[in-house]
Formats: sequence, C-alpha cells, structure tokens
Amino acid sequence: MLINGEPGNTISIRDRGLLYGDGVFRTLLVSNGQPQHWPLHYQKLKHDCEALGIACPDFDGLVAELSGLSDAHPDAVLKLIVTRGLSARGYAPVPQAMPTHIWDVAPLPEYPESYALQGVTLRLCELRLGHQPRLAGIKHLNRLESVLAAAECADVAEGLLLDSDGHVIEGVRSNVFLIFNGHLITPDLSRCGVAGVQRDRVMVCARQQGMRIEVRDVELNELFAADEVFLTNSVFGLWPVSHFGQRRWTDFSHAQKIRAWLERSDHG
Amino acid sequence: MLINGEPGNTISIRDRGLLYGDGVFRTLLVSNGQPQHWPLHYQKLKHDCEALGIACPDFDGLVAELSGLSDAHPDAVLKLIVTRGLSARGYAPVPQAMPTHIWDVAPLPEYPESYALQGVTLRLCELRLGHQPRLAGIKHLNRLESVLAAAECADVAEGLLLDSDGHVIEGVRSNVFLIFNGHLITPDLSRCGVAGVQRDRVMVCARQQGMRIEVRDVELNELFAADEVFLTNSVFGLWPVSHFGQRRWTDFSHAQKIRAWLERSDHG
Repeated sequence: MLINGEPGNTISIRDRGLLYGDGVFRTLLVSNGQPQHWPLHYQKLKHDCEALGIACPDFDGLVAELSGLSDAHPDAVLKLIVTRGLSARGYAPVPQAMPTHIWDVAPLPEYPESYALQGVTLRLCELRLGHQPRLAGIKHLNRLESVLAAAECADVAEGLLLDSDGHVIEGVRSNVFLIFNGHLITPDLSRCGVAGVQRDRVMVCARQQGMRIEVRDVELNELFAADEVFLTNSVFGLWPVSHFGQRRWTDFSHAQKIRAWLERSDHG
Repeated sequence: MLINGEPGNTISIRDRGLLYGDGVFRTLLVSNGQPQHWPLHYQKLKHDCEALGIACPDFDGLVAELSGLSDAHPDAVLKLIVTRGLSARGYAPVPQAMPTHIWDVAPLPEYPESYALQGVTLRLCELRLGHQPRLAGIKHLNRLESVLAAAECADVAEGLLLDSDGHVIEGVRSNVFLIFNGHLITPDLSRCGVAGVQRDRVMVCARQQGMRIEVRDVELNELFAADEVFLTNSVFGLWPVSHFGQRRWTDFSHAQKIRAWLERSDHG
C-alpha cells in the first residue's frame, strides 16, 4: 500500500475521506503486469475529482506509482482512493487542502468460470437508489446505499438496483445493459448510479461496430422483455445474465460478441 | 485522540469508514469538564448503529473513555465515530466485523455572541437533499451533500437545505424550527436529513411546557410566514434566525423561552 507515494497502511482520523466520505476512488485490474485501461481510469478519476472540487493527483506521479505496484503485483486488483485531505472541524472544504491519495492491492477475485460463459443470477434489491444529480455518475466514497444493497444480495452473483421512481439503474457493483432487436440500451445515470469505465468501453466498442445505442430511462418490464441482459465492471469484465426472477435467458450471442470486441480492444 | 480505547490518530486504509463511509458519528460538547447530554447521545448512537447493522460499542466502556477525555479537555467539542471496522474487498459487510470507535477532540468554536442574542443570517442552498428513507435521520459518514452545501454557504452563519421536492428539511449542520401562533413546527425527517439530539431535546422541553408540536412537511413559504425561526445543534445550542432572503425577524421571544427551558434542563 502507498499513501501519498510512501509505503504505509494508515491515514489520519482527520482525513475528510473518513469524516465525510469526501473523496473518490477507482478499482482497476492488473493482468500480466499490465494495468488495464489506466488512461480511461485516470480520465474518470480526474472527472470525478473535478465534480467535487478536489485537486486530482498528477498523471505522471500516479503512473510511476502504478508501474511499481504492477511490477510487484502482476495479477491483482488495485484500488486508488483520492480524498480531499485533512480538515479542521466542519463540513466546508478549505481551498488549500492537500488531497490524500491511497493505493491498495487485493488478490484477483475467484469468480466461477461459468459466470462469464453461462451467465449469472441477478436479483432485485429492495433498496431503491435516491436521486442526487450533483453526485450522480461519480464513484465517490459515500457508498452506504451500495453497502445496504450488497448486504441484501450477498447470496447471488449480483443485485439489481432501481431508483426511487422504479427505473432500472445499475447492479450493486456493475453497470447494466439490455439488448433489444440488436440495439444496445443502458440506463441514464444523471440522477443516481455510478458510470463505470467499462460501461464507457462497451459503448465505444458498440458504436465503432455500428450498433445503435440508447442511454435513457429503463423500466423494469423492459428488462424482463429484453433479448439479452448483461453486466459490466472493470474487474470481472462482462457477465451475461441468465436468471432474473422467473425470467431465463440462454442466448448470449450479443453479449459474447461485445466481450470479443472488448478483448480485441484490450490487445489492440 | 483514542482509537478503540488506545491513544492514536490513524486508522487502517481498509477501514470501511474510509472505504464506504460505513459508519456513524456524534458531536458533543464538554463544558466545565461535563459531557453534555451524553445519555441522549449514546441512545442516538445506538439507534444509528442499529439502523446500519453495526454493533454499537458498550455504554460503560465509552463512559470510561469519555470521562478521561472530559477531564483532560474540560471545555471542548468531542467527536465520536463508530465504523463497521475492517473489510476485505467488496461492499457486503461481513457479520463478524469488529467495529472501530474513534474519539477526537477540537477546541470550542468561537461564534460571535450576537448569534445567540440577535440571531443569524440563514441562506438558501442551491443543493437539494435527495430522498433515501433507509438512511434518513441517521448521522452517518456519507456526508457529501453536507460538504457541497457547506461550500455554498461558507460566508453565512448557516445554510438552509430543501429536499428534491422543495420541502424545508434542515440547516447544513443544524435542525430548523418554526413558530406559528405559539405552536412549534419542525420538518419531518423520514426521507432525508439528520435528526439531532438537540432537536429531540427541544421537542421534549416544549411538550413538557404544554406547547403544541407538529412534525410534518414544511413548505418554503411557511418559513417566510413564520413568527419565528430558529436553529439547533449540540454545539451552538439554539440560534434564532434574524435574516432569510428579504425576510427580517426581530422578535425572538419564543426562541429565548425555549433556550431558557433547555438551559434549565441542562442543570436540572
């Protein structure tokens, strides 16, 4: 683990990351010593920092740290947290705050191979995501909704989250896509949800292949009616959904085609 | 500072308080070596821990720590944070997690004496609180809305927060009360907002004095029309509002009466 570039595994109890969840994070994969899609992760980190008015750490400094970590842990999951830094008492951020950035390393998760090939069970969470347009899309440290939802769905591969209006938003730790008549549909995340880097990659690949894409409100009955449903995140990549409530899917041809595009672009 | 009863000022970067804001906190005043309203704070801490499924630290252990801190810092603001503790990767809480509890000490804030006597300026924040009934009322560590709101209102005594429906909810770091024809009105906090200990105390005192109390949705135009408006929290106690937009108030007689009740119950 590195804290502001130095080896360490603790932070001050006055860090605003702890006090208020005042920060953002990234989770990325290292495969064969190569960090996957780092430039996209940095772009998203910078975007999220800017949305909260946090000074994003410099690209070159992070690359140097990332390079050392990837050499030491060639197959791992890296987490990068950026907080607004230390604070006196009070919610108001001080403009001169020096951000804290933290790298942590975890082993690759051991998901059953069947998840990617035969699909996963998705279950509807009872928790509904609240609307907060000022924080929507950002991968910030205020993740209590995710914690409560994950607690509900700990016994299935993934939980599905609706918002307070009943629209389909995302998985607990993934983004969700629907295929309808060969078109790609993914929920609008302007009121809640986290817009992942892998979600962007799917849309870029699909667009390059001439697929029609809609980013819009998605009703739950559309999910049941979809030709295919799949989930994405930066660690597991892409999982087709095989079970949701009484609905079963067995044809994952679009999901598999899109995964092939993503893998080609990984090595391209 | 104490971490799990031991002197210290850092926590693990794998503490869920940092990773997800997965915890709750209390801010309380120590005056002349006496922690103010500790039993109420503990009751609220326990309630908030239970709402998140976090094991609340034992009363007696906290009292022993609090006693030492109050002796060492007889006039101070104490902050007590309880997080769900350490975590492996992933949002889902593990049942066997050992909570982390943290005490921090800050000097008394130096508010102008006029705030309590001549009232304060309240300004409407642009940020609207999102609805999340599962977290409403809880003083948890997911405080980005408070941070964004405080950044907007750093140049006035307090900012007023509405919810996404335009209802009056609270101040950035306080609860809000209206007086109408001698009745006390305070916003319903079942969809968003933080229910402070001082808010409870005001309602208990007012009820004991035979005042009629309504806890309900409050419209912004009711605030403009109120005979008096005042703010409460555990550190500053009670501040009447003198200015809000074009509205001026100069009669604070109900607010002053309620403050007198609170002070009598402090020493009773």
